[in-house]
Amino acid sequence: MNTTKHVSLNLNIRGLGQSATLGIKDICRRLRREGRRIYDFGLGQSPFPVPAPVVESLRHSAHEKDYLPVKGLPALREAVADFHKRTDGLDAHPDNVLVGPGSKELMFILQLVYYGEIIVPTPCWVSYVPQAKIIGRRVSLADASWETRWKLFAEQFHHSIELVHDDFRPRLLVLNYPSNPCGTSYSEQELKELAEVARKYQIVVLSDEIYGQLHHEGKHVSIARFYPEGTIVSSGLSKWCGAGGWRLGTFLFPPDLDWLLDAMSSAASETYTSVSAPIQHAAVTAFRGGVQIERYLWRARRVLKALSEECVRILNHCGVRVHTPDGAFYLFLDFTPLTESLESRGISNSIDLCSKLLSDTGVAILNGAAFARSRSELTARLSYVDFDGDRALAASETIPLDQPLPEGFLEQWCPNVLEGVRKIADWARGEIASEG
Amino acid sequence: MNTTKHVSLNLNIRGLGQSATLGIKDICRRLRREGRRIYDFGLGQSPFPVPAPVVESLRHSAHEKDYLPVKGLPALREAVADFHKRTDGLDAHPDNVLVGPGSKELMFILQLVYYGEIIVPTPCWVSYVPQAKIIGRRVSLADASWETRWKLFAEQFHHSIELVHDDFRPRLLVLNYPSNPCGTSYSEQELKELAEVARKYQIVVLSDEIYGQLHHEGKHVSIARFYPEGTIVSSGLSKWCGAGGWRLGTFLFPPDLDWLLDAMSSAASETYTSVSAPIQHAAVTAFRGGVQIERYLWRARRVLKALSEECVRILNHCGVRVHTPDGAFYLFLDFTPLTESLESRGISNSIDLCSKLLSDTGVAILNGAAFARSRSELTARLSYVDFDGDRALAASETIPLDQPLPEGFLEQWCPNVLEGVRKIADWARGEIASEG
Repeated sequence: MNTTKHVSLNLNIRGLGQSATLGIKDICRRLRREGRRIYDFGLGQSPFPVPAPVVESLRHSAHEKDYLPVKGLPALREAVADFHKRTDGLDAHPDNVLVGPGSKELMFILQLVYYGEIIVPTPCWVSYVPQAKIIGRRVSLADASWETRWKLFAEQFHHSIELVHDDFRPRLLVLNYPSNPCGTSYSEQELKELAEVARKYQIVVLSDEIYGQLHHEGKHVSIARFYPEGTIVSSGLSKWCGAGGWRLGTFLFPPDLDWLLDAMSSAASETYTSVSAPIQHAAVTAFRGGVQIERYLWRARRVLKALSEECVRILNHCGVRVHTPDGAFYLFLDFTPLTESLESRGISNSIDLCSKLLSDTGVAILNGAAFARSRSELTARLSYVDFDGDRALAASETIPLDQPLPEGFLEQWCPNVLEGVRKIADWARGEIASEG
Repeated sequence: MNTTKHVSLNLNIRGLGQSATLGIKDICRRLRREGRRIYDFGLGQSPFPVPAPVVESLRHSAHEKDYLPVKGLPALREAVADFHKRTDGLDAHPDNVLVGPGSKELMFILQLVYYGEIIVPTPCWVSYVPQAKIIGRRVSLADASWETRWKLFAEQFHHSIELVHDDFRPRLLVLNYPSNPCGTSYSEQELKELAEVARKYQIVVLSDEIYGQLHHEGKHVSIARFYPEGTIVSSGLSKWCGAGGWRLGTFLFPPDLDWLLDAMSSAASETYTSVSAPIQHAAVTAFRGGVQIERYLWRARRVLKALSEECVRILNHCGVRVHTPDGAFYLFLDFTPLTESLESRGISNSIDLCSKLLSDTGVAILNGAAFARSRSELTARLSYVDFDGDRALAASETIPLDQPLPEGFLEQWCPNVLEGVRKIADWARGEIASEG
């Protein structure tokens, strides 16, 4: 227009910037171009390839060009319902499934259509809170602690509700387990107790179970088992199927929340319309599962479990606190025990912590503030995915699934992860000279 | 939850229903299941297949699994910029391209981030206004008329702006040509005059040129040629590439609107993240074009042009007014000359008109009210796409491109369209008995 820019932006979006996980990817890319050796523990992408039968299915469906129904391809909705029956023991029906271009988009639309307060236990995934801000929804953060393995317990949940004198306030609890950024999950008993509170106050639970199939021991349990009438189960291809870039997420609704499913479909029909047809056709194969996919999953879990345990072992020897995860591919590092020594190096918040670590060592981890923790808390998320999952899976193929990975396996196939984690440990001990 | 449903919905979404075009698809599906012969002129989907090299490219990219950059795959952004240089003569740069899961989603996000009033000439595409309603934006409708071929002229545009005494009000004009629902397009002179008004009031123009490549004579001109500093050009694979179900749309921004591109990227990173990776890789082939795709386009245009002319010829003999379109695959029928005769049959608005036509004849067309026209106006959109475009293209392959289609071609390859349009004509003349 003219030299003065007539910027006219929605105030909820001004200054929002990029999603933190995507932002760190750009920084790593830039540093690599500058010739730095980078240990990329920032982005949360599965290191494993899309299982072969699913890729094959996409090839077969490449000509599919029709707009599909807003709620999803009927065969896919059926496969998703079967998946939840089979893996979660839920009474799932295809009519109650909604397919979207990523569960992130579905969560956005859920927050857009649902008129209520969002309760988010922290540390939480990076996008729940920005989504609420864009839409202008009220967020109530429930901060968990190291002591509870960063989990929300029923008592605290109950307490956060009672703080507001409005028992029938419309509320949506977002529960994510195995958790991003912590990798920790809930026990049956913990879920039962949370379900009881949710039922008492008729709170809708959005149960983000995108890492459910990546429970390291295949023992994921859904809260929908204990609160079927009020739980929306969120899943998708991105994590367990290694297809983050494909963009396909799913919601499973209880029949009683059909009004929410219908409202979301309306909003979907005015926004994303329907998910890419070839991708949906291929996703049918993924959700149907089968022996090949089952074996792929068990092999992936075995690598992730062994690798996470080795990382925890290294980190626990340098004063950083970290829980052994139950699933997913994250560790949530707590440098609190090193507060004094870090302060003497001029580090007093998680943002400085991560940028100093990156410039000193080339290790990229994401600061705790991005996960809705206080800036002053010395926490950060580490994604232990900087290895070639394709080769690691192939190398583990001949090792029977009931046997552990042999010694040296991780050093051979995940060297960057181990080297980077050792660098963190050395740096935490003050054994790496500061570069700037 | 319990027997009384605690429905808590955003009032902007309550009662929204499904997008009208998707809604009619469901009705046709139901009627077909009941055994009715249906002429499906409701949905706006290209009848042609995705060009073979593009399908092949998707097969080759089926293994691509990475999350791509929010703004789009660099090679695709380059191909889109080249496409706009080549086909529209625009000074397009890859940095100014944004890729989304359909241009509908991009338009929604544009309306979400831009804080201003939306000016929409009507008849308009079904989703502009509902999107504004969901977000809570003010819409100013500028009703065009039969006399202007349903187009907004500069004088009326100017007038609609002057009505509000706020010369520097942030405004977004949505211009769509060749038009859905009319098929009409603008001349260079008309665009120049509109550009002048937009420039004077610094109005951002969203130029929806999704049907640009389906101008029947390949003579599409973009308003960005005359208002480069303020025009966002919207395009995508859905129409000219026959890939509506693939869900890939593109925006090309002027450098001065980089703040809008950046804000949209922020919102995108918290919603759809990025477009499906295999689809983006395949789209590179589509936007790069080449001889095979060029020939495909010319063959498609020849069929659409001949078919539209034949439909117009039939309809003009029954008293229905309709303009010969310039592009796309729509006719906007105006039954106004038949007002009296229709009223005597109990029809006094476009909704009754279309539902009576459907029940009497099996012909599905979409009422004018869905395109933001007054209910009482007896108008409707007809999509002349109910034929097998794959076979029609193949049959036309041996006919040199500088020659017209031989007599009988349309009867042979597009029989349903001609039969349905003849039914409309007979019905309009009162020659089909009412069924109920």
